[in-house]
Amino acid sequence: MALSDLRQVPRNEEGVGIVLGVLKQRFGERFQTGKSIREQHAHTTTYIPNQAPDGVVFPESSEEVQEVVKLCAGHRVPVIAYGTGTSLEGHVNAPGGGISLDTSRMNRILAVHAEDLDCIVEPGVTREALNAHLRDTGLFFPIDPGANASLGGMAATRASGTNAVRYGTMRENVLALTAVLADGSVISTGRRAKKSSAGYDLTRLMVGSEGTLGIITSLTLKLFGIPQAISGGVCPFPSIEKACEAVIATIQMGIPVARIELVNEVQMRAMKIYSKLDYPESPCLFVEFHGSDSGVAEQAEMFGEIAADYGGGPFQWTKVAEERAKLWKARHDAYWSALTLRPGAKSLSTDTCVPISRLAECIAETQADIDAMGLIAPIVGHVGDGNFHVVLLIDPASPSEIEQMEKFVARLNMRAIGMDGTCTGEHGIGQGKMGFLEHEVGHSVEVMRAIKATLDPNGILNPGKIF
Amino acid sequence: MALSDLRQVPRNEEGVGIVLGVLKQRFGERFQTGKSIREQHAHTTTYIPNQAPDGVVFPESSEEVQEVVKLCAGHRVPVIAYGTGTSLEGHVNAPGGGISLDTSRMNRILAVHAEDLDCIVEPGVTREALNAHLRDTGLFFPIDPGANASLGGMAATRASGTNAVRYGTMRENVLALTAVLADGSVISTGRRAKKSSAGYDLTRLMVGSEGTLGIITSLTLKLFGIPQAISGGVCPFPSIEKACEAVIATIQMGIPVARIELVNEVQMRAMKIYSKLDYPESPCLFVEFHGSDSGVAEQAEMFGEIAADYGGGPFQWTKVAEERAKLWKARHDAYWSALTLRPGAKSLSTDTCVPISRLAECIAETQADIDAMGLIAPIVGHVGDGNFHVVLLIDPASPSEIEQMEKFVARLNMRAIGMDGTCTGEHGIGQGKMGFLEHEVGHSVEVMRAIKATLDPNGILNPGKIF
Repeated sequence: MALSDLRQVPRNEEGVGIVLGVLKQRFGERFQTGKSIREQHAHTTTYIPNQAPDGVVFPESSEEVQEVVKLCAGHRVPVIAYGTGTSLEGHVNAPGGGISLDTSRMNRILAVHAEDLDCIVEPGVTREALNAHLRDTGLFFPIDPGANASLGGMAATRASGTNAVRYGTMRENVLALTAVLADGSVISTGRRAKKSSAGYDLTRLMVGSEGTLGIITSLTLKLFGIPQAISGGVCPFPSIEKACEAVIATIQMGIPVARIELVNEVQMRAMKIYSKLDYPESPCLFVEFHGSDSGVAEQAEMFGEIAADYGGGPFQWTKVAEERAKLWKARHDAYWSALTLRPGAKSLSTDTCVPISRLAECIAETQADIDAMGLIAPIVGHVGDGNFHVVLLIDPASPSEIEQMEKFVARLNMRAIGMDGTCTGEHGIGQGKMGFLEHEVGHSVEVMRAIKATLDPNGILNPGKIF
Repeated sequence: MALSDLRQVPRNEEGVGIVLGVLKQRFGERFQTGKSIREQHAHTTTYIPNQAPDGVVFPESSEEVQEVVKLCAGHRVPVIAYGTGTSLEGHVNAPGGGISLDTSRMNRILAVHAEDLDCIVEPGVTREALNAHLRDTGLFFPIDPGANASLGGMAATRASGTNAVRYGTMRENVLALTAVLADGSVISTGRRAKKSSAGYDLTRLMVGSEGTLGIITSLTLKLFGIPQAISGGVCPFPSIEKACEAVIATIQMGIPVARIELVNEVQMRAMKIYSKLDYPESPCLFVEFHGSDSGVAEQAEMFGEIAADYGGGPFQWTKVAEERAKLWKARHDAYWSALTLRPGAKSLSTDTCVPISRLAECIAETQADIDAMGLIAPIVGHVGDGNFHVVLLIDPASPSEIEQMEKFVARLNMRAIGMDGTCTGEHGIGQGKMGFLEHEVGHSVEVMRAIKATLDPNGILNPGKIF
């Protein structure tokens, strides 16, 4: 299948008409139907076509979310939850029209329980807003996808980022949540105990369900103490393979690395220019260690020795916050620096994840594929987990480049699945990867469909996504 | 509700008769109907009545599990998965009769991927058998419930143990699994990638579903490197409250403690005699640290300072394996030593879990409750997670003690739920805690029921459990 074979979702014109009228009446300025705002609330981040909703509503409470869902359920009109619109696989598109439910006004931090290392937030709180709020407590929330995404959206897409190798993903860090279901009822999936074996794990069922089973209205999240000390640095390697081998050795040695990021030579070229980094134009690992003063020094020394065993180095590391911040700013700006490699191009960032023993092989085959296509496509990866991204720079006006890219992504996904990995480590399925899920999990898709049909029999929650 | 109000499940005599005949024919000696073996395959570990199945089958492959399930599905006969029978809440009882599916012959370790820190096992492999098999690889599987349980059973009940504060529970450590569903079809919930955002998290839906949604036929588990160094020891405290405060401070400081176990003074008295430990008869914390040589020494020193701040100490710790082994053997034997406090008594081990800020209060109220009852009931806990157990020693022939105990457990569960905790941190709901689930998660129980009805419309998989 081609990525752009989006699933059709029939429109319900009559229902939409009624719902638009009621929402206008009820929400006033908090309901918008202008073309520009509607298009902003559909997919904008890649070449996947923009499929705008019929209107955008800005609820401010769980009760208002219930009201909107009940109204839409009554008239069989789709409801698409919207956080910051930074997803990459078409998650917020409205292929059958309907209402975009923008959670940005549900941005209260409801509680911080510092003693218990948890907090309760509304879904529209962004990860940066939460960490700014936490600053004085000595705590932080570690999950950091590239964008300053909303925590509701991050939970809905099972997001992760550079810290996942140490702190896990949204799967491990959402303790419980509340959600409005397709019939307008509300569930609370658990309480604040750090662990529980009380019944089915509905928290994890909702995390990663991409708004298709319910709309998250609050989240109980784990927090962590800001480490006493942090060390980090950059280490060049003669090849991607050697860098990957050093990663495997580091993980196997049990060194509790907090971040270990691969940047290939094309991406390093971009970062040297864009972020003014002074490193060789070769594959590099960006690493960071969290712990006690002596612990992080010890870990950095051990990593340096491992790197040298694989021909890497010199490993330049520091405990100085400003110097580390510059490195990680450059890493987080990888997307923007990559764009400078082909001015005017549109980027498609796609991700896969494989067992780390297959990582070097998977990246090497992918690199050969990129070279054969003649496209510019830097590679960056959260390699401690075997997860990597390819950022394809293409001319959005060129059908042949889009076709090339679609075929490339299909090969990449099937390559990862063939290596016992997944077609998406952290971006989700959305519309873009629907064609690959069944290859990955087979009959499980039927079970997913059955659960969807049970919890949302009329298919009003984010239709046309995942399967 | 009283714990002993078990849910009735109607018997299907005709179906059972047919199934018994077919299984005898098909499985020969691997199908047993003797009274003693049937009773061994029902609940035996607490005072909950033994409800025996009609027969016990010992399949040796996923295909044979499918065969049994299809046969039973065709005749609407219950199938109850059985690991080692060490669950504590009546999980393996057969209230409506049916077939116990004993997985003990599915005990092969199918693959160990040392480079990827994962392995694939059949459900009947026990945790000790896996660790014995792994010994030469330098890896281990950390989850350690009190019993030498089967890994399939541990996944099905979302088990954990003393290491959970550092390594997580079965929730975090099952990467993927295969399971036979109620219609005899097989699902594979994922591959070996460390993280994935591909569709609904069916792995986590099956983990903790207590055999009611499917029968696990293989598990892909995370493994960890055996730490380079381990330090550990015992620290007495003047009171439970002070011990809990030290735990909170330790967790908040971000000291990566691997185990932190509370043992109250009654339990210490038992352990001193049974396990010949030479410590004061006061509340104690058993702690352990995993890491590098200098790291574990540093962590032990830091913990000792925190303990002293809360009036605890002296903290006697060691890096010598034999000395540590004696301590942890004593901790793991807590159940047996507790039994010596009242010879001839039957024990009921019940567990709850609360946010750690409420732990001291919850344990203090529970201790006062025990004192008021006049029963002997030691308390031990995985307190880094806020999880603790009360081991009630009762006379099984005394209806008044059983009634007292049931009321006590009900108060304990409701106290934990009232403190934003759970009625079970690691034992599961089974039959024993069915009356409390709805108090804890409210409307979510309806969602669980709906999922159950979809995946097992005839209710043949472990009926009469959870809800």
